[in-house]
Amino acid sequence: MPDFTDTLRPAEPQGPSILAQERAGSNVNTDQLANHLLSRNDFLNRQKKILSILEPIPVFCKKNQLNMARPDRYHLGLARAKTLRRLSLKHGWDRDDYLMADYLMDEMGPYALHVTMFITSIREQCNDEQRAYWLPKVENWEVIGCYGQTELGHGSNVRGIECQAKWDPKTKEFIIHSPTITASKWWNGALGRTASHAIVVAQLLLPDPPTGKYKSYGPHQFIVQIRDMKTNKPLDGIVIGDIGPKYGYPAMDNGYMLFDQFRVPHSALLSKYSGVDPNNGTYIKPQNAALVYGSLTFVRAQIIMHARLILARAVTVAVRYLSIRQQFPDRDSKDPNAPEQAVLNYPTVQIRILPLLATTFALHYTGEAMYKLYYGTREQIEKGGDFSRLAEMHAASSGLKSLCTTLAADGIETCRRAMGGHGFGGGSGMIALNNEYLSKPTVEGDNWMITQQTAAYLIKRMTEVAKNPRLKPTDSVDVQFQDFVANKSRSHDFDILGNPLELVKAFKHRASYLSYQAYHARVLQKKPWTSMMISLHKLSRAHSESLLVSNFYNAVFESTPSPPLDAATLDVLKVLFRLFALFTLDVSASEFLLSKALSIERLQNVAPAIQDLMAQVRPHAVRLVDAWSIPDYLLESALGSYDGDVYNRLFHKAHKENPLNQLTFNPDWRTEEIVMGEGEENARRRLEALALGTTGHEQFNVVKPKL
Amino acid sequence: MPDFTDTLRPAEPQGPSILAQERAGSNVNTDQLANHLLSRNDFLNRQKKILSILEPIPVFCKKNQLNMARPDRYHLGLARAKTLRRLSLKHGWDRDDYLMADYLMDEMGPYALHVTMFITSIREQCNDEQRAYWLPKVENWEVIGCYGQTELGHGSNVRGIECQAKWDPKTKEFIIHSPTITASKWWNGALGRTASHAIVVAQLLLPDPPTGKYKSYGPHQFIVQIRDMKTNKPLDGIVIGDIGPKYGYPAMDNGYMLFDQFRVPHSALLSKYSGVDPNNGTYIKPQNAALVYGSLTFVRAQIIMHARLILARAVTVAVRYLSIRQQFPDRDSKDPNAPEQAVLNYPTVQIRILPLLATTFALHYTGEAMYKLYYGTREQIEKGGDFSRLAEMHAASSGLKSLCTTLAADGIETCRRAMGGHGFGGGSGMIALNNEYLSKPTVEGDNWMITQQTAAYLIKRMTEVAKNPRLKPTDSVDVQFQDFVANKSRSHDFDILGNPLELVKAFKHRASYLSYQAYHARVLQKKPWTSMMISLHKLSRAHSESLLVSNFYNAVFESTPSPPLDAATLDVLKVLFRLFALFTLDVSASEFLLSKALSIERLQNVAPAIQDLMAQVRPHAVRLVDAWSIPDYLLESALGSYDGDVYNRLFHKAHKENPLNQLTFNPDWRTEEIVMGEGEENARRRLEALALGTTGHEQFNVVKPKL
Repeated sequence: MPDFTDTLRPAEPQGPSILAQERAGSNVNTDQLANHLLSRNDFLNRQKKILSILEPIPVFCKKNQLNMARPDRYHLGLARAKTLRRLSLKHGWDRDDYLMADYLMDEMGPYALHVTMFITSIREQCNDEQRAYWLPKVENWEVIGCYGQTELGHGSNVRGIECQAKWDPKTKEFIIHSPTITASKWWNGALGRTASHAIVVAQLLLPDPPTGKYKSYGPHQFIVQIRDMKTNKPLDGIVIGDIGPKYGYPAMDNGYMLFDQFRVPHSALLSKYSGVDPNNGTYIKPQNAALVYGSLTFVRAQIIMHARLILARAVTVAVRYLSIRQQFPDRDSKDPNAPEQAVLNYPTVQIRILPLLATTFALHYTGEAMYKLYYGTREQIEKGGDFSRLAEMHAASSGLKSLCTTLAADGIETCRRAMGGHGFGGGSGMIALNNEYLSKPTVEGDNWMITQQTAAYLIKRMTEVAKNPRLKPTDSVDVQFQDFVANKSRSHDFDILGNPLELVKAFKHRASYLSYQAYHARVLQKKPWTSMMISLHKLSRAHSESLLVSNFYNAVFESTPSPPLDAATLDVLKVLFRLFALFTLDVSASEFLLSKALSIERLQNVAPAIQDLMAQVRPHAVRLVDAWSIPDYLLESALGSYDGDVYNRLFHKAHKENPLNQLTFNPDWRTEEIVMGEGEENARRRLEALALGTTGHEQFNVVKPKL
Repeated sequence: MPDFTDTLRPAEPQGPSILAQERAGSNVNTDQLANHLLSRNDFLNRQKKILSILEPIPVFCKKNQLNMARPDRYHLGLARAKTLRRLSLKHGWDRDDYLMADYLMDEMGPYALHVTMFITSIREQCNDEQRAYWLPKVENWEVIGCYGQTELGHGSNVRGIECQAKWDPKTKEFIIHSPTITASKWWNGALGRTASHAIVVAQLLLPDPPTGKYKSYGPHQFIVQIRDMKTNKPLDGIVIGDIGPKYGYPAMDNGYMLFDQFRVPHSALLSKYSGVDPNNGTYIKPQNAALVYGSLTFVRAQIIMHARLILARAVTVAVRYLSIRQQFPDRDSKDPNAPEQAVLNYPTVQIRILPLLATTFALHYTGEAMYKLYYGTREQIEKGGDFSRLAEMHAASSGLKSLCTTLAADGIETCRRAMGGHGFGGGSGMIALNNEYLSKPTVEGDNWMITQQTAAYLIKRMTEVAKNPRLKPTDSVDVQFQDFVANKSRSHDFDILGNPLELVKAFKHRASYLSYQAYHARVLQKKPWTSMMISLHKLSRAHSESLLVSNFYNAVFESTPSPPLDAATLDVLKVLFRLFALFTLDVSASEFLLSKALSIERLQNVAPAIQDLMAQVRPHAVRLVDAWSIPDYLLESALGSYDGDVYNRLFHKAHKENPLNQLTFNPDWRTEEIVMGEGEENARRRLEALALGTTGHEQFNVVKPKL
């Protein structure tokens, strides 16, 4: 409906002209930098290609998502997932195309586990016969699968799961059974309402030949049909459901599942590495499962690369909006009509956003380094059977997964808060981003738990080095540790402000110091592991930060950027390196002091140096986020759109698209009527049912919004 | 529907027996401590009384909230708000009763601004005549009001608002007008769909007598009828709507509003302090508005007391659940069947939760101190016209609002993450808590902005002290500053581990040091204010932390607790004091080192001391959270309920109450059908409309859940 607001414009200056000025004021080569960052797998062209297909399709429209009931989010999620599958066939998408569509659609849907964990288990855990049977069905999506490992009472400690698969020697079947409520499968994506089949992880129980008493051989994977292929109802002896609303992932049917003495054939046990002899029920031991470690590193490199794009998304919104948003004139101005300042000009805003901007690049170069490490190690293994770098790679990947997902998760919220009121609003695009990403510090290894793996590895290497200071280095940290042990008591006071390489050395020194402390406590003093957990976590963080700083340094100072970069652009990246490293150092300054990497006198100059570096980055901030090439469709943000037309978008989104504005309400407390004209009795019954969740409200006389 | 899960129980040990053991293992006197913490305004009895009224009423049932569409949340919110109003009359509730109901209901609803900002403006900004006219209508809820200050383009800087109220000398009316889109009122609660009247803050424009040119006299408050009293439609010349979904507050209709040359009478300008002469259109200047500062302090004391209960709620859930949740046996155990440990036994979990438990008490004692300061200052003003403590009180309240709401907001998320997977689930009770509370760091003064007020005050006091080191102290910080200035270059190395008073001194010293640095930079070196902003923020934080530590110390070491506490209980509070202070110190350790409050050698012992204190608190954790007396109805948490029956609650909530589980879906990607039996064509139209937000879906043939 047209009204007088149609002719109004935002106050001057307009957002688009501000962003145009910002872009004109920087010599960062955006296209070149975009290509430098996103050349892997032809990312930019692929993004363009897939975006043009998705964006016009109505079910992929995101604008109503925040208004919707959770059950409807699943309905829509299933419709979208089906559409994606059909599109992938129609357009002949490869796996990277499909993943790009998933990234742009930005929704974990009901098929998400089918194409990841389920298919991976089929590929990697089946013996040849099993794979020949299942893989075609899975690849043709004749069955829809999910992965059932975690339980209501059991998450990180897989050995603790209660679900049982007991071998019945008479029928040569496994009896899958949930002895308790806590044995219920829980959280498993796509299980709740969708999947026909599940990989079920259960304790393998086999009878001990002499006594016949059952003994557990630990968790194993079974493939189990869980629903009828026609009706999609759970099979007899299985109870399944969706676990209900969560912080994020409304379109995903995370499920629960219990078994009541449910029988599956011998062939259900996925038997690539281990198995059960069907003739005598004895266990066939697993082969070396070392390769699993390798693929975990690959998954974690992907997590870091994903984290950089997630953080880049938040920083993109923040940098664009905060360049446009103006607030307060300069307090020292003598002019009573001095203009308001762009919020991003305030150091208190810069200190929250610009180090995060630098962090996106730090994550990028470490993700790249991990891919290289992974491929290099795989080649060593495949060509020469050389497994020597696996432990190092695994240790690095654990600590980095923890640190990088924490940086991204915290970074999103920091950006959101920096945007003040509008950051709290639905036009920010930050609500779903925050809600979804906050799962990442927990899944794929809890961020406070997996750091123990990194610390244990570092203690082991330090023990070797301390035992034999002249050992031939096998791992990357060995040289660093040898150097530390040789100069243990020396005060260094690295020239971190003058020389970027000294920054790298300071981070290595602090990590070595904490490694030595941990080695001393654990190996020499025999301290209980549990009592050391906090310092082990700090050690992992220190080592991981050292890796981030080293990889960033190597990329911008030591190597020729590939794809190449202009000198001016590279110079800005060098400033970002120093900003990232100094900011990170400042957060844990006392550890650098304690390790004597730094003197108190030098520390005093760190905060002013950070402020100076931020002033250098500021003019390039908009172009730097542009380089991350996050399309508006993915940002879904009135605040962060490329064109900067913030206020028109915010206003018209509310004024034209909010379904709540289609109804008129009765605000008088003396009547129970809610929607004007619906009547008291109707309103009372409708609202009670809504509160209790006992019904939809189709049988009530609700005035519905007009089309 | 009964099934085999009805007979299943969680694995041993059961949650209730674990919590019973925890409670038996501590000598903290829970009832006494509850009374000590919650004696103000008869809190505990009132909570009991109101809870027993609310809990049985169907519309107050919270269990379906996370499933609901946002528009439905407003519908339900309005029904609840009406019910609360009717209950308050029926039971003769006073204001504290009503606020208690609001607290327990835990939802910002469509009447929330009527009973706060709107009524406050009427009471405090009206002249006698206006008050006599409006107050009865407002108190009888004949009109429903809201408060319209912030605009789309203007938040913290109230002087920047664009909405105009231009005096028309001919008609003796004000013409209220929105010249731009950014002038739209925005965020104003209860405006979107509910309120009939608004306090509108607009630039008062009056003609300059000689030229007739209009000049702004700054923002003033006007009372404006905005909707028709019968139809509840906006009046001609006004466009109003709800701004759409937000991070939190789904039941609140935060609104937007624009005026097109809308005329209001002279009496619309609230004229207690200033006004316009209707005869000649000249401005009547405001009287001293100093009392406004006083009430701001009161509001901020309330914010801190609210923050402590919010944080206590998160910590309650975390402590109870993490006592029950078991994960991994002790890594050093030689026993292969060693039992899994309670998660709260791990130091890496304790370090996240137990300092926050200590923080709830720190916030409490500072909230109490602020109430005392407020009432004391008000008495000084009313009895003796002594305004001298206003500036100090205002400065303290700004920094504390910033720090305390940040601690609570961050603390909720820390608790949530510490609970791993179940912390991400809807059974945690943390989703709404997090979503709502994350507004607090922004509203009532942005947490990064208002710290400037605290810092400016401290610089002013330091300037006075530096100018005249022997001045007669007028403010609390004066003595502290005099002491610092006299011993400026001394290294202190306070005995923070041995003597709790030395902890207080260390915090004061660090705050004084930063005050002196800021004074030196601003007053002596004349540095630009903007360039100092980061250090000003740090200064405010240091001062506020010093206040939290001092107030906590005074309450548990220097005074007789009132209401009284057993020695054993008081001893635990003393441990909590040391934990809070040392943990807080450790987070900013480098500032203590730089200020020479601490030597590096002593800092090395801080982390082990914190771990030792946490071990002392651990056995009392469950009883300590019990003392905060958060009822299950408010927790709305399967993880945190008083009885500890975690897994039964989580499971049955999903299995019995999730509406998504009432439908069967068609997972086959080859068909567009979503709900089994609805047909392809119907599904396509329904889902497209849902995605585009163009309709409800009542005209579609949807299989609805059975009642």
